[in-house]
Amino acid sequence: MADIFQKALTFHKKHQGKLRTELVQPLESMDDLALAYTPGVAEPCRRIAEDESLSYDYTWRGRTVAVVSDGSAVLGLGNIGGAASLPVMEGKAVLLKRFGDVDAVPLVLNTQDPEKIIAFVRQLAPSFAGINLEDIAAPHCFHIEAALQDIGIPVFHDDQHGTAIVVSAALHNAAKVLGKKWSELRVVVVGAGAAGTAVTNMLLGLEWTTEGLERADVDQTVGDVIMVDSTGAIVEGRSDLSGYKKDLSKCTNLGHTGGTLSKVIADADVVIGVSGPGVITQKMISSMAADAIVFALANPTPEIMPDEARAAGAAIVATGRSDFANQINNVLAFPGIFKAVIEGRLQRIEPAMKLAAAQVLAETVTKPTAEKIIPTVFEPQLAEKIAKGILARATG
Amino acid sequence: MADIFQKALTFHKKHQGKLRTELVQPLESMDDLALAYTPGVAEPCRRIAEDESLSYDYTWRGRTVAVVSDGSAVLGLGNIGGAASLPVMEGKAVLLKRFGDVDAVPLVLNTQDPEKIIAFVRQLAPSFAGINLEDIAAPHCFHIEAALQDIGIPVFHDDQHGTAIVVSAALHNAAKVLGKKWSELRVVVVGAGAAGTAVTNMLLGLEWTTEGLERADVDQTVGDVIMVDSTGAIVEGRSDLSGYKKDLSKCTNLGHTGGTLSKVIADADVVIGVSGPGVITQKMISSMAADAIVFALANPTPEIMPDEARAAGAAIVATGRSDFANQINNVLAFPGIFKAVIEGRLQRIEPAMKLAAAQVLAETVTKPTAEKIIPTVFEPQLAEKIAKGILARATG
Repeated sequence: MADIFQKALTFHKKHQGKLRTELVQPLESMDDLALAYTPGVAEPCRRIAEDESLSYDYTWRGRTVAVVSDGSAVLGLGNIGGAASLPVMEGKAVLLKRFGDVDAVPLVLNTQDPEKIIAFVRQLAPSFAGINLEDIAAPHCFHIEAALQDIGIPVFHDDQHGTAIVVSAALHNAAKVLGKKWSELRVVVVGAGAAGTAVTNMLLGLEWTTEGLERADVDQTVGDVIMVDSTGAIVEGRSDLSGYKKDLSKCTNLGHTGGTLSKVIADADVVIGVSGPGVITQKMISSMAADAIVFALANPTPEIMPDEARAAGAAIVATGRSDFANQINNVLAFPGIFKAVIEGRLQRIEPAMKLAAAQVLAETVTKPTAEKIIPTVFEPQLAEKIAKGILARATG
Repeated sequence: MADIFQKALTFHKKHQGKLRTELVQPLESMDDLALAYTPGVAEPCRRIAEDESLSYDYTWRGRTVAVVSDGSAVLGLGNIGGAASLPVMEGKAVLLKRFGDVDAVPLVLNTQDPEKIIAFVRQLAPSFAGINLEDIAAPHCFHIEAALQDIGIPVFHDDQHGTAIVVSAALHNAAKVLGKKWSELRVVVVGAGAAGTAVTNMLLGLEWTTEGLERADVDQTVGDVIMVDSTGAIVEGRSDLSGYKKDLSKCTNLGHTGGTLSKVIADADVVIGVSGPGVITQKMISSMAADAIVFALANPTPEIMPDEARAAGAAIVATGRSDFANQINNVLAFPGIFKAVIEGRLQRIEPAMKLAAAQVLAETVTKPTAEKIIPTVFEPQLAEKIAKGILARATG
């Protein structure tokens, strides 16, 4: 790792980061200037003043999104603050451009007050076609995103839904390979932060609203999900539960099974780790149902290494790493999602669109195997396919 | 004009606006991704968390500024709101790139509450190397800018200071051509909005602070400035004056001359119009001192047309238009100013730096004449020269 980190510093310093702005048409004469700036620019301004939707036609707004973060939960680094999170947000913007042909701007904030973040994004709305919230810690991320669903452009917290979409797609193919029925899957999710909560919500057809956790209008749900945090299984009535975990306890863990991960993982079909290194043991995997599915997604060190998981009986293993088979990475989803936002001029991303994205992503692997349940980011036309799937759902 | 407006709509619609984002280095392999994104990106994040100034080295922050507007005073259009002002802000971003090689992002807001704008820019500070405030109406613009001078990056309201710098440069050369002494110039400024106030401040060595109007640390001031608003000359004790105009009345109009523009313009050396069409008449110009200097800057229709002004005795005339000689346009200054911000990693733009910018801009015309007191924006290396002049002042 030390080597890659040194190379990464050199890479980032070479041209001061990774992103730049560029003109879409040359400005070489006074005549060009008269169109792009004064006096010609007055006309698109006047038109937009009459009809704001024309800003999508006459400015870059129609093809540009913002990646907004307070740096409170940066993958693998924790709460490092807005300024220090900028390399990640600039990286997301670069990936949106490279894989989705979506223009994107990273904006990092020096506040972590949820109400201030909400006010900031509200004020910003006329500038962009969509907002990708990124690396904002739970539970604030749930409230912030729910409070911003009415601003006229989609606000999408990728750590939640991007992860959930890719996990869901990979799990669909894993279940298919092993002949397990989706509606009967017993799933254990290890980690109850933004990603674990969103994965659970997607598998169970739930969504956060300003009123709390509600049933979304979707019908494909798994059999049950048991969430596990550092204290053990989240179960209704657990005395220390508060806030969003209390809400989750009412919609998960149908058998009301309390106790440690070691206990509740027994007989599960699937374990999805979104916590930290070493949290899942071989003994736990041995206790799972036959043909166990293990997604060990902690980065850079998974909850259990793939060879260990397989040796303990796992039939299919996925991680977040590019050096193992089945890399589960948000970059498989978010460029296509924001491509749909741009192409469809969406105002919200509905739960059904997320399911459509997961379905298309799964279907790009025509013959899934234990070693290939998910495509790589270099899969041709991946973002185009996902966008098309979402937009079919948006209009259908 | 109808023709240019139709062409401008076509120009703006062709590629959805004028600006786009682009990668500075290709991302073609998993190895590239491992440097630009996970896991490599963690290392620049860690370094910046230890020392925020490194964000200038490892991200695009080091070469990128934001153009922020609430659309409350868009040139020639008035208060059209944030969304409708986006073509102008995108245009500024394009000009910054084209003429200053500065990356820039337009951000338009759906609030015009000065405190909310201040909060927005404060929260945004870690994302950029500088902020260009644009088209924000007086008097809010004075308060907003003054309140943001402590955020660690320069906040520069271009309608004020960009205009003042270019006017000051043009006036220096006009005075030189006519042999008028700078310290003895009697100037009338018609229009007491953001631009008129800033021109006055620059000519008299004043600046807005959070405490009000104060003397800046500069020594080149003209003899006197009389500001005229729609009611007449601003003079100490005028009963209807309040707020910033009251402050201005104490520092201008040394002879305490009240009355209409027709009255106070008599014997003036210079009239600078930043108001509207037709406000300056030939009779007024005839009443001015010999070799009168007339800057009629209203766009697109000047306060008086150049041929009329000359026929009435004006020795030198400048306008805001590209189809007449001596075009006074902010684009002559702001790309160089933000180039200096980027290259010098400035934290503030001091009054002395603005004077340096005006001086360099004036000096780019090696032999000024009545028909050429200011260069065009296509003057080679203009932004580089201005940046160099500012940075010499910053470090000297």
